[in-house]
Amino acid sequence: MSFQIHPRLLRGSFLLGERGGCSLLLKDNALFPWLMIVPVAPEGVEDLHQLEEGRCAEVMAVVRAASCFVSDYFAPEKLNVACIGNQVRQMHLHVVGRSPEDAAWPGVVWGSTAKEGYHSDRVREIQAAFAEHYPV
Amino acid sequence: MSFQIHPRLLRGSFLLGERGGCSLLLKDNALFPWLMIVPVAPEGVEDLHQLEEGRCAEVMAVVRAASCFVSDYFAPEKLNVACIGNQVRQMHLHVVGRSPEDAAWPGVVWGSTAKEGYHSDRVREIQAAFAEHYPV
Repeated sequence: MSFQIHPRLLRGSFLLGERGGCSLLLKDNALFPWLMIVPVAPEGVEDLHQLEEGRCAEVMAVVRAASCFVSDYFAPEKLNVACIGNQVRQMHLHVVGRSPEDAAWPGVVWGSTAKEGYHSDRVREIQAAFAEHYPV
Repeated sequence: MSFQIHPRLLRGSFLLGERGGCSLLLKDNALFPWLMIVPVAPEGVEDLHQLEEGRCAEVMAVVRAASCFVSDYFAPEKLNVACIGNQVRQMHLHVVGRSPEDAAWPGVVWGSTAKEGYHSDRVREIQAAFAEHYPV
């Protein structure tokens, strides 16, 4: 198919899997449990409300499942869920677990420069936990 | 009913209306077309995925309608939609119209100090347009 994840989204992340017509990525930043959901969407559709209603509901179901995974597995105090895309215009949603001890609290993570790459062992652990928690 | 909008949300905004069990507020910042959606939610429910599935869908339908209003009426280049709530923990969602000319572009509006209150005539215009665009 012609759908391709934007190289800037791919470059800084690891693929967790594909669910409900979306790619789920783990952002390579061990300071925040941070998933990105990239829905397959028609060319030029950048905002959620531009999706056809049924497709929007399908994407939101993936966001809900991703939220449950972040919440259950990382046990943050709060989730931050957002669709922004001012810079990378390909539609993508963020699900970020937040805690008062984290490097950007109580601010948002977007615009924060706090960053620490994962060790690859940890990425494999998270990938395995995701697959178990949210089977295809 | 015992549901009350958090005073910090109320203080900096104008009520546009109630739809689908949510209050819709216009944030008092003329620099960004910025709506907040405050869903009636059970005590202690702060994150979207904690809402019962049908209720979550109802709230997302309000977010969708609010997005259409912001998009049609203000004609921004992009929408930013988010549920954050690190500081005010009562669940609320933001729908913000963004444009390359605005005071925070391409950054996010959360954490930006750019602020300019509306003239009351303009608030009444927006309230009227909202009521017409999104009838009860």
